[in-house]
Amino acid sequence: MSDKQAKDAIRLHKKLKGKITIESKIHNLTPQDIQLIYTPGVAAVCEKICKSLDQKYILTSKANNVAIVTDGTRVLGLGNIGSYAAMPVMEGKSVLYKKFGKVDAFPICLNTTKKQEIIDAIKAIEPVFGAINLEDIESPKVLEIYDQLQDELPIPVFHDDRHGTAVVVLAALLNSLKLVKKKIETAKIVIAGAGSAGYGICKLLSFAGCKNLLVVDSSGAIYQNRGKNMNHYKDEIARISNPELQKGTLDQVLKNADVFIGVSGMSGIISEKMIQKMTEDPIVFALTNPVPEVDPKVAKKAGAKIIATGSYRYKNKVNNAIVFPYLMRVILDKRIRNITEEVLYLAAIAIARSIPDKDLGYDNVIPDMTNPKLQKNINFALKKL
Amino acid sequence: MSDKQAKDAIRLHKKLKGKITIESKIHNLTPQDIQLIYTPGVAAVCEKICKSLDQKYILTSKANNVAIVTDGTRVLGLGNIGSYAAMPVMEGKSVLYKKFGKVDAFPICLNTTKKQEIIDAIKAIEPVFGAINLEDIESPKVLEIYDQLQDELPIPVFHDDRHGTAVVVLAALLNSLKLVKKKIETAKIVIAGAGSAGYGICKLLSFAGCKNLLVVDSSGAIYQNRGKNMNHYKDEIARISNPELQKGTLDQVLKNADVFIGVSGMSGIISEKMIQKMTEDPIVFALTNPVPEVDPKVAKKAGAKIIATGSYRYKNKVNNAIVFPYLMRVILDKRIRNITEEVLYLAAIAIARSIPDKDLGYDNVIPDMTNPKLQKNINFALKKL
Repeated sequence: MSDKQAKDAIRLHKKLKGKITIESKIHNLTPQDIQLIYTPGVAAVCEKICKSLDQKYILTSKANNVAIVTDGTRVLGLGNIGSYAAMPVMEGKSVLYKKFGKVDAFPICLNTTKKQEIIDAIKAIEPVFGAINLEDIESPKVLEIYDQLQDELPIPVFHDDRHGTAVVVLAALLNSLKLVKKKIETAKIVIAGAGSAGYGICKLLSFAGCKNLLVVDSSGAIYQNRGKNMNHYKDEIARISNPELQKGTLDQVLKNADVFIGVSGMSGIISEKMIQKMTEDPIVFALTNPVPEVDPKVAKKAGAKIIATGSYRYKNKVNNAIVFPYLMRVILDKRIRNITEEVLYLAAIAIARSIPDKDLGYDNVIPDMTNPKLQKNINFALKKL
Repeated sequence: MSDKQAKDAIRLHKKLKGKITIESKIHNLTPQDIQLIYTPGVAAVCEKICKSLDQKYILTSKANNVAIVTDGTRVLGLGNIGSYAAMPVMEGKSVLYKKFGKVDAFPICLNTTKKQEIIDAIKAIEPVFGAINLEDIESPKVLEIYDQLQDELPIPVFHDDRHGTAVVVLAALLNSLKLVKKKIETAKIVIAGAGSAGYGICKLLSFAGCKNLLVVDSSGAIYQNRGKNMNHYKDEIARISNPELQKGTLDQVLKNADVFIGVSGMSGIISEKMIQKMTEDPIVFALTNPVPEVDPKVAKKAGAKIIATGSYRYKNKVNNAIVFPYLMRVILDKRIRNITEEVLYLAAIAIARSIPDKDLGYDNVIPDMTNPKLQKNINFALKKL
């Protein structure tokens, strides 16, 4: 980000005093309206819900409300900046949710970073919301929170860092592989990073048929019974990837890989030389923000055929903003309780196909988030669920 | 409420699917805007708050956000209907907050009725809000919650059932006493009900100089060391009221009273006979909703000079909707941390004076909530704080 962009951003936020506002759906409220929406008329509405609880989805805003919940421990590339400082990201997300998905999303920045307290707070506020979006919470804590909420919460939980990222990556990957005429089943794919995004991508690529898949963390390739620096989720990664139990550093395992997917949070970890050791027509997704794992120019020079980043500065923006508003729209409308790999897979294909084959290109593997086909295609793909 | 009104209310809520919506303050969002409000520009805003925490009041919507928190245990006259069924009231409140106070208020209906869990949830979500509005939570639990939050929460807590009701009652009382030429210091005032409203009114009237004040609950007049059916808050009521330690039923203590204030939650507890035993020009505020302590026609027939209810069906609507949007506007703008009796007293006087003397009348002791002078007068009254 340039200094000018930073200054412009601060100036705009100061002017707006926050980016979202709560509006009444009734304009020009009359005294008669007040008697219906407040006392005494509202009592009839309350009683109707009390008698038949499912009416809450019909008579209140619950059906379209989403809580964007964070504890501020892993915000953007900034790390643990706390819940107060995380608020502008959540408000920005709320703006995108409304603009692209017509979803009413409200920031819930929590004053605690303790796992059980986060779970308790989410369960406490559930009556107001149709879904929860977990956001910018450190891993593996957030994965544990997700698992517990899946069991205990009656509404869907969407974990954008995991689900959203996995969908946009798979969508871009499907188009990229098509362009270089390789198959997902046989391509060697290396993921750098075993946090929420790495875990989500690994699970979804595995579901999509990828066999030759490796995930690397700070201790090198993850394999079954590695022992060192493992957790419940890395155990699962080990079970569904790296069948040959390959060991070694990122540098070593990237040799002969067809695809690199960087969600490591570490800028500049990929060198020209590492890309040169990949196979023919290598695909490089360097998705760490704000500075990617490798500069796109360097990657190009090293022979990368297709390069994507998470940033708006380059072509091929593999950013989950293309996913969450549209996918949440369907989750709410269809009241999808579990965000399964199948849901994510169908969404990824729908996104990939939003670019017609004739328009696909090395610099155009993923549609822009404003693409008007996205909502229609995702709706259609998830219709049968 | 008529059958027709009930049907109309349900029909309107069904059509609207909830009464509030979250909107972006930026219309016609451009790709350039997205880079400022979301990644990468937003990172500069986050960092600015992280470095200087008070910037959260300038760069986010916190300064204007209010959480309307309920556990659904004491909703309107409906009682413990639960948090899902309470939602329409909270949304209605949100609409009024926006319309009359330009406040962004969001419903937080909690999935728990346990005191400590309610406190924990409110403390957890504090980063998003500039103030908390406690709503429709049973007493004395809610008073205990308030006291603990006062100590532990960095933002103001407004308890509408207590604070809002006390302000509107005092405002109407000041104008009523003026009309019947009596003084608050000497008038005998009997309050029926020792919940949040009764407690709040007792405290504020005491602060306003009322000496001859009695509060009655289901066990009769409250006096020091009564023993039976007391709690911490009734002890406080006993200390600041009933200096002569009068005992007896409502019927007995109402004899020779100048003013009756009903916030009992019990309809029809006042008979014609009871009013006839009050002094000359009795003032009767029968504020229980939806059906008051006495029918205004019956009270009139019995000789009540001034009659007020909490309902929109009658003249003299003593409803806290006239208070909360306007008072919260000032609380947020001035970042008033403690809602003291002085704050409430000044607000009550400002509201009372919003009707010019020449327009005061037995059927016009309290301004309508749409009165354009209300905000200006309350702002002015609280300016010096």
